[in-house]
Amino acid sequence: MNSKQWTIDDIGPKNLKISEARVEEARGNNLLIRTEAVSLNSRDRLVLERGMGSLLKFPFVPGSDMAGLVEAVGEAVTRFKPGDRVISTFAPDRIEGHGIGSARNPPLRTRGGVYPGVLSEYVTLPESWFVRAPATLDAGEASTLPASGLTACFALVENGKLKAGDIVVVQGTGGVALFALQIAKAHGATVIVTSGSPEKSERVMRLGADHFIDREGWVESVYQLTGDYGADHILELTGGANVGEALRAVAVGGHISVIGMFGGETISGPILPLLLKTPVIYGVSVGHRRALEDLVKAVDRMKLKPVIDSRYRFEALPDALERLGQGPFGKVVIEI
Amino acid sequence: MNSKQWTIDDIGPKNLKISEARVEEARGNNLLIRTEAVSLNSRDRLVLERGMGSLLKFPFVPGSDMAGLVEAVGEAVTRFKPGDRVISTFAPDRIEGHGIGSARNPPLRTRGGVYPGVLSEYVTLPESWFVRAPATLDAGEASTLPASGLTACFALVENGKLKAGDIVVVQGTGGVALFALQIAKAHGATVIVTSGSPEKSERVMRLGADHFIDREGWVESVYQLTGDYGADHILELTGGANVGEALRAVAVGGHISVIGMFGGETISGPILPLLLKTPVIYGVSVGHRRALEDLVKAVDRMKLKPVIDSRYRFEALPDALERLGQGPFGKVVIEI
Amino acid sequence: MNSKQWTIDDIGPKNLKISEARVEEARGNNLLIRTEAVSLNSRDRLVLERGMGSLLKFPFVPGSDMAGLVEAVGEAVTRFKPGDRVISTFAPDRIEGHGIGSARNPPLRTRGGVYPGVLSEYVTLPESWFVRAPATLDAGEASTLPASGLTACFALVENGKLKAGDIVVVQGTGGVALFALQIAKAHGATVIVTSGSPEKSERVMRLGADHFIDREGWVESVYQLTGDYGADHILELTGGANVGEALRAVAVGGHISVIGMFGGETISGPILPLLLKTPVIYGVSVGHRRALEDLVKAVDRMKLKPVIDSRYRFEALPDALERLGQGPFGKVVIEI
Amino acid sequence: MNSKQWTIDDIGPKNLKISEARVEEARGNNLLIRTEAVSLNSRDRLVLERGMGSLLKFPFVPGSDMAGLVEAVGEAVTRFKPGDRVISTFAPDRIEGHGIGSARNPPLRTRGGVYPGVLSEYVTLPESWFVRAPATLDAGEASTLPASGLTACFALVENGKLKAGDIVVVQGTGGVALFALQIAKAHGATVIVTSGSPEKSERVMRLGADHFIDREGWVESVYQLTGDYGADHILELTGGANVGEALRAVAVGGHISVIGMFGGETISGPILPLLLKTPVIYGVSVGHRRALEDLVKAVDRMKLKPVIDSRYRFEALPDALERLGQGPFGKVVIEI
Repeated sequence: MNSKQWTIDDIGPKNLKISEARVEEARGNNLLIRTEAVSLNSRDRLVLERGMGSLLKFPFVPGSDMAGLVEAVGEAVTRFKPGDRVISTFAPDRIEGHGIGSARNPPLRTRGGVYPGVLSEYVTLPESWFVRAPATLDAGEASTLPASGLTACFALVENGKLKAGDIVVVQGTGGVALFALQIAKAHGATVIVTSGSPEKSERVMRLGADHFIDREGWVESVYQLTGDYGADHILELTGGANVGEALRAVAVGGHISVIGMFGGETISGPILPLLLKTPVIYGVSVGHRRALEDLVKAVDRMKLKPVIDSRYRFEALPDALERLGQGPFGKVVIEI
Repeated sequence: MNSKQWTIDDIGPKNLKISEARVEEARGNNLLIRTEAVSLNSRDRLVLERGMGSLLKFPFVPGSDMAGLVEAVGEAVTRFKPGDRVISTFAPDRIEGHGIGSARNPPLRTRGGVYPGVLSEYVTLPESWFVRAPATLDAGEASTLPASGLTACFALVENGKLKAGDIVVVQGTGGVALFALQIAKAHGATVIVTSGSPEKSERVMRLGADHFIDREGWVESVYQLTGDYGADHILELTGGANVGEALRAVAVGGHISVIGMFGGETISGPILPLLLKTPVIYGVSVGHRRALEDLVKAVDRMKLKPVIDSRYRFEALPDALERLGQGPFGKVVIEI
Repeated sequence: MNSKQWTIDDIGPKNLKISEARVEEARGNNLLIRTEAVSLNSRDRLVLERGMGSLLKFPFVPGSDMAGLVEAVGEAVTRFKPGDRVISTFAPDRIEGHGIGSARNPPLRTRGGVYPGVLSEYVTLPESWFVRAPATLDAGEASTLPASGLTACFALVENGKLKAGDIVVVQGTGGVALFALQIAKAHGATVIVTSGSPEKSERVMRLGADHFIDREGWVESVYQLTGDYGADHILELTGGANVGEALRAVAVGGHISVIGMFGGETISGPILPLLLKTPVIYGVSVGHRRALEDLVKAVDRMKLKPVIDSRYRFEALPDALERLGQGPFGKVVIEI
Repeated sequence: MNSKQWTIDDIGPKNLKISEARVEEARGNNLLIRTEAVSLNSRDRLVLERGMGSLLKFPFVPGSDMAGLVEAVGEAVTRFKPGDRVISTFAPDRIEGHGIGSARNPPLRTRGGVYPGVLSEYVTLPESWFVRAPATLDAGEASTLPASGLTACFALVENGKLKAGDIVVVQGTGGVALFALQIAKAHGATVIVTSGSPEKSERVMRLGADHFIDREGWVESVYQLTGDYGADHILELTGGANVGEALRAVAVGGHISVIGMFGGETISGPILPLLLKTPVIYGVSVGHRRALEDLVKAVDRMKLKPVIDSRYRFEALPDALERLGQGPFGKVVIEI
């Protein structure tokens, strides 16, 4: 059987084309999955534009997050059966704890990067790379959980032990940010969203945000909104010198989750608030499979609906990538 | 009753002089304590030299850490009786959790700073500011626990959940560093000490260190000693750009405790190891009273003996401060 | 100044009478507080009926939980000023961690027991025994937090790290149970309430419960409602053999909080579910001051309103105690 | 290729016989492993004598813990290569968190039980079922880690966060008990061993125990040895009413790990120490793969040598089982 897939033979989104590849049968512990939806991340654009050093193997299939239906299972498969809807894991080797790597060579083995991506009609892969999809989401919604959903959940719940009454600052209105907003509200937290786009205020408030503030001068705004208390949890999605701003805004004993790196490759900030307020800074790299399973369970029970900015057909990937670059409100999804 | 005490009327160690002050009786929940020993910290020199903005009240008594004997107790005291040996707490308001402060105004209320210091023959203070001294230490040794001992213990045990087999990097051979070495060894960890003073190697190894490496190129040395694994715990006692080095040296999922600020008021480092290795960075500011009580209990049970570089008489404070500036091996203690 | 107070000179509620006692001035670290409200607990009835071995000192003032206004402060008080509304702590020595006691002699020093109670117009006591009241509650509501509110919060949040999507079983509709229901719902959990009083169903559901089931056969009901998954958190308010039922109902890796002891002085249960499902069983004894401060902060931010069954005047204490014995729906409060 | 293996066709150790079975080639993610050593557990005797309800499939191969050499690897294997020494995991599905199961149907899928056992010259099994063996142990020693070593480590380190200075009570001198003694000593704890066999005292003390006390009256002995403080951690290896004794002996806020069930199928104890001392009771069922990987790393770094009572040849299994029933001092190992 053949499968259509998007590939590049060289770095650069202009090299994207639809090709065909042979699909392996499901043997051993493999699943044969028909892809129903792929959710895009900013990282997909970075990988297409810059590559990943020498780590990509061409022809390279982009995309890290998918939902699909199990069509066939190998004879050693125990967790799934044909007809099950599954979602992928971002770092397939990371079933718990941390990814495979060392101090010198940090973990890098993720889908749509070192491992081939998911923009393919069919994939044949080990069952350990997948998690059962939530029962209450459609395939497009489910495909947004493996990276954006899990990152927000891992930062706030797994690391941050978020609780009702906590004050959470979320930076921006991208995929991770809106999941963080929804998850924080589900836990009874007070949520402050910072943004450079005032026109998004209404939609953010409709999602339950308590405050929508300008990205400029956000630290002072947080002081004022909280009576100088600060934020118990800050999702730092920018990096760079903004980490220093987060150190100023964080409450005594609060949590800062460093997630994004649009602010450059170096973080910096004042040492005094780190020493005096003794916050904890977490580096966050999505999360592990067990936490994704917990998220799936919680999504069903909380009735959380991921925010989807727009849905595109498989052939419209270039349009979807363009939309991704425009600062969408929520996730951009490809449906097959 | 009068008490001799060291004071300054203006910023600058040259203003140090011995004066006399009236000692209050022990009433209510106060203890009257005869000071037996005071342990000096680099911070004492910084406060004498630079002050603390406008926070010092003159005449100012320096020194934050003491051991002493309870001479009399107020009628409401429940935890101590005359004859008990006690040690002070660094941040007397911080019985647990975090100090009193906010995001805008971080906690600052510590002894020998916002609160008056301990270089005084007698002090009359609330019982809540004190902890019973270990039974197995003399007064000079006991006086080293409230800041140096507790900082090392808080970073490794309270925050870091240190366990046998963990790899610990300790930077330098000051008071906190040597406590960290001893505490880590007591927990069965492998300890690597970095230093710029090769002549200290022998003494460090005698204290149980597994490796003594040059401060220059320490990250590469850690890679080599650990087969690229890196360090599970790094006590970052310098700050500044050295935090970036710690991010390079830390193991996947490891802990970095930022404690010192000799490297300047700004920390900086590469974001990629933070995102990919997902370590946790803790700001450490000594610790709370409950953790000091745990440390006292553990010191007695472990038979841990603090490393004392030198002991001085009360009148020899200037000599002791000079010794402190020379990079002593362990703690400099004043005995009264 | 004199203060009216309820006292007994011997064990037995029939000995309750209103007497007068001299009120001390606020000196040192003491507060003079005018009591506004006292919240009753089942324990108050037990203490009145059975005493506490030889631990009560007569004349004994019952009651452990109060809210009041600071009228005057001693010269060493730092946390409060006249006019502040405060609430008491159940175990005044337990500012963090655990109470004072040992393996042989467990912690017992609580208000309205070893320490005198609060059913008094005025009290003069150390500031460390009090916490600022929430801004959003009246005095009657605030008085319900120190024991019932904190117990529920400690079990679910402090110990249990409750998160959205978790399944919580709450046994009964007493004070702790209804707080647990409200706190669990505020965190996005699914809540199942067991009860022997079907007529309470409507009120329980109005408070947000997801399911209301009969106490008889509750384990099987939990299996059925959760598709055999079980409960992530069980508040075991009965004790005795019901702990064994909780072991049957708990999810793999779940939490059981043992709180009450109406089921007798011995707990028992099957060992296999403990070994195979590896749950954690916590003994819960209210909680510490720091957690009460966290609860106060959260109550204001969550807008949680304690459920009050009925309010009585100071003189109507006997009526209030009778109501307490009838299985009230929420808290019974005395207002002064 | 054929492999010799021990099997039973019906419940009862008298049915044990050596048979031959065909060994599968290593395909997909499977490893072909030549067994070097098998470590026996009391559970192996229970399974042989009583079966496991209807869960055993005949012919049944007993034994859960092995060390062996990888002879060949399937084409999808990524973690091992031929020549690697590996050890098995007790519950192969449990890579992290908890085993597969529900409240109604607890996790049961372990080796030498629901899954076939390891008393076979060769096994062909998925790589996910194995962990790299420590470099510093021989095969016999390494084979003792998957159940006994991991159980002790999980109780004390993973659950209990053991730290230097803690007081640990270990009941008896079986495999788990001696690992617990060694691990606790490696972490700087004070260890009290209870036993009914005074002749074992010398060997226990040589392993580093601080105190060896009679099983009769052990609670009072713990009070006396600790000045009434009690034990921070108790490994409860008996179950039944002994859990009640552990509740009496545990320190305020301590940990009780319930592991064994020789004391019967029902646990019981007084509720008051549970409510007043607020200990935590953990049910322990060996542990997960990630914790076994941590243990392997720690064993190499700590130079921990498992205590082996006796080593038997493959053919001498019946003798080894008999020795197991005599209360060996440490582990009984079969070498092939």
